[in-house]
Amino acid sequence: MSRPKPIEYADTSPQVRVVFDDIKRSRNVADVNNFWKYLAADPALLKRTWEGVKEVMAEGALSPPTKELLYVAVSVTNGCGYCIASHTASARKAGMTDAMFGELMAVVGMANETNRLANGYRVPIDAAFE
Amino acid sequence: MSRPKPIEYADTSPQVRVVFDDIKRSRNVADVNNFWKYLAADPALLKRTWEGVKEVMAEGALSPPTKELLYVAVSVTNGCGYCIASHTASARKAGMTDAMFGELMAVVGMANETNRLANGYRVPIDAAFE
Amino acid sequence: MSRPKPIEYADTSPQVRVVFDDIKRSRNVADVNNFWKYLAADPALLKRTWEGVKEVMAEGALSPPTKELLYVAVSVTNGCGYCIASHTASARKAGMTDAMFGELMAVVGMANETNRLANGYRVPIDAAFE
Amino acid sequence: MSRPKPIEYADTSPQVRVVFDDIKRSRNVADVNNFWKYLAADPALLKRTWEGVKEVMAEGALSPPTKELLYVAVSVTNGCGYCIASHTASARKAGMTDAMFGELMAVVGMANETNRLANGYRVPIDAAFE
Amino acid sequence: MSRPKPIEYADTSPQVRVVFDDIKRSRNVADVNNFWKYLAADPALLKRTWEGVKEVMAEGALSPPTKELLYVAVSVTNGCGYCIASHTASARKAGMTDAMFGELMAVVGMANETNRLANGYRVPIDAAFE
Amino acid sequence: MSRPKPIEYADTSPQVRVVFDDIKRSRNVADVNNFWKYLAADPALLKRTWEGVKEVMAEGALSPPTKELLYVAVSVTNGCGYCIASHTASARKAGMTDAMFGELMAVVGMANETNRLANGYRVPIDAAFE
Repeated sequence: MSRPKPIEYADTSPQVRVVFDDIKRSRNVADVNNFWKYLAADPALLKRTWEGVKEVMAEGALSPPTKELLYVAVSVTNGCGYCIASHTASARKAGMTDAMFGELMAVVGMANETNRLANGYRVPIDAAFE
Repeated sequence: MSRPKPIEYADTSPQVRVVFDDIKRSRNVADVNNFWKYLAADPALLKRTWEGVKEVMAEGALSPPTKELLYVAVSVTNGCGYCIASHTASARKAGMTDAMFGELMAVVGMANETNRLANGYRVPIDAAFE
Repeated sequence: MSRPKPIEYADTSPQVRVVFDDIKRSRNVADVNNFWKYLAADPALLKRTWEGVKEVMAEGALSPPTKELLYVAVSVTNGCGYCIASHTASARKAGMTDAMFGELMAVVGMANETNRLANGYRVPIDAAFE
Repeated sequence: MSRPKPIEYADTSPQVRVVFDDIKRSRNVADVNNFWKYLAADPALLKRTWEGVKEVMAEGALSPPTKELLYVAVSVTNGCGYCIASHTASARKAGMTDAMFGELMAVVGMANETNRLANGYRVPIDAAFE
Repeated sequence: MSRPKPIEYADTSPQVRVVFDDIKRSRNVADVNNFWKYLAADPALLKRTWEGVKEVMAEGALSPPTKELLYVAVSVTNGCGYCIASHTASARKAGMTDAMFGELMAVVGMANETNRLANGYRVPIDAAFE
Repeated sequence: MSRPKPIEYADTSPQVRVVFDDIKRSRNVADVNNFWKYLAADPALLKRTWEGVKEVMAEGALSPPTKELLYVAVSVTNGCGYCIASHTASARKAGMTDAMFGELMAVVGMANETNRLANGYRVPIDAAFE
């Protein structure tokens, strides 16, 4: 009863449909992912999130494939199951090979380990890093 | 009294000195960072961590500069002050420009936001991602 | 084999039954949630946790509905699936509408994003906040 | 050297100045907080973040004071020192009393505790919450 | 202005003094730590937290020194600077040697690493663990 | 399609088989856990992780059962479902009783609570802890 419900394309209001259409066109997909169907319950949140994602993930000083790797790194660190699944898929679509995925995991694992070693040993920041 | 203490190069045991020398040679630096000076209190941990970092951060399917960006992304997500400072410095040394840093922060921020939206809306994983 | 097991009302010791009865009476429910059935494996933990929750979630300077929103915000940030489900349900029972849920998610998402921007940019605390 | 630098009002580009002016006007303050001075290094990030915050924190189904409490709850859970300081200040400005702050901390602490109890006992979600 | 303030023993209300006296007696210390001085702003929170800590950290199926190690492990994982400092001190008082501290850090680091590998590889739970 | 796949013993390369054999021999088990079957996709990561775990979890200044408790504490704090399940099983195998599990959960819960109270009250580190 209290679980949020997705909104399918056929049931969208005009306000939501505009966003769904833009997602489908931008990504060249037949339907939007579950993430967007759930956010559609709040059209303002849907619109702001999609526009933010589109702007942030665009080609820039960093390439979209690199940005997808970063997205996976954050999602794995946070343990967000949905985000790990969806952004691993996006990263693969953007060219991530098995070897790249393996190294990505290795870096994320190592960073999570050394973050805690730095915390636990209470390491002061080197003057050179200021 | 209970705060861990760093070990300076001049005070290292032969076992620790071997690692410090390898860090200095590999990175072409005059002295090792505080992180290694604190880990030196436990020579086995120092050796294993350094060898792991060296292996993981080496050129491979992903380039070292990309790996440094990933390290910053994890450290920022975890809020590890030391690691943010040291890996931002490494990333800059590896070529990260101001524009790249800005985009890195934008992706990390966005991923941390959408990770929570996916959690809160309890979004089920799309069949296509399995 | 190693998975913890719930204790149903019919199988409770007198010590646990007293707590279950108090939960049922306080919340006016026919049975306690799974959370309490699992904690019942450790009667001291069950008792202390229930008494803490009862005290903390009571009407005070903040209203119970506001406290339920806060509980959801923490649970979403931590990615605790059980807690998101149970406290979203409690919040709805306490009057949270769809519009309120949408804004709650928006604030939680935004706070998780700006927390990382503040970390990554290493923003020093303004004198006015001390 | 690698530490990000703030941009003071006098040194802003026209693009940044428009945002700073809007922050000062909206919040009726003489100068913007350090957070915005650091984000100003990336004008697109500054603009998107400010517009997002302004939209999300506005009066709506939830009141601005309630939203500030939620912001503090997330920031305390994540351990973001800057955000705890700045949003505690905002919450106080929005009317948070000492008693409200104490209850906020109590709820946040309790939620962080029970989140882990639910994780550790691997509590399955009650059918009623689906 | 908005920063919480500590309450020194000489300024305590009778309600707070009872708790401070119990802490001093139980731990055989001349003064309570800053943690308790800050919680004293909310006497109900102070009392409940102290009674919870006293009960949880007592000799039981696990020894107090083991419990202090666990406290450090959680605090390092969360990156809570105050808690790392105070519980490392408590653990040392309870007998933690340098060698034990080093191994504690190694386990905490490794667990934080493998937690993310399990997340990223989306490893399903073995039937034997259910 | 994008979900990582496990590698069963019969399908291992010689490089992976050496590690699997060592795990089976060291732990005296008929087959390796899913965790290792997934890591096997990246033989270098598999080898380094197994050797690290073997070294870190060995008898030392801390006993293996104590180390398993620490592993559970970290995994519960991070909310890693797989790791909670697998290390609870290991801890039970190493002698963890129901009473010990209950106290472990109580300490982990309490530490997660007081970590946030220390954050929220912005408690400065006592001079005695430096």
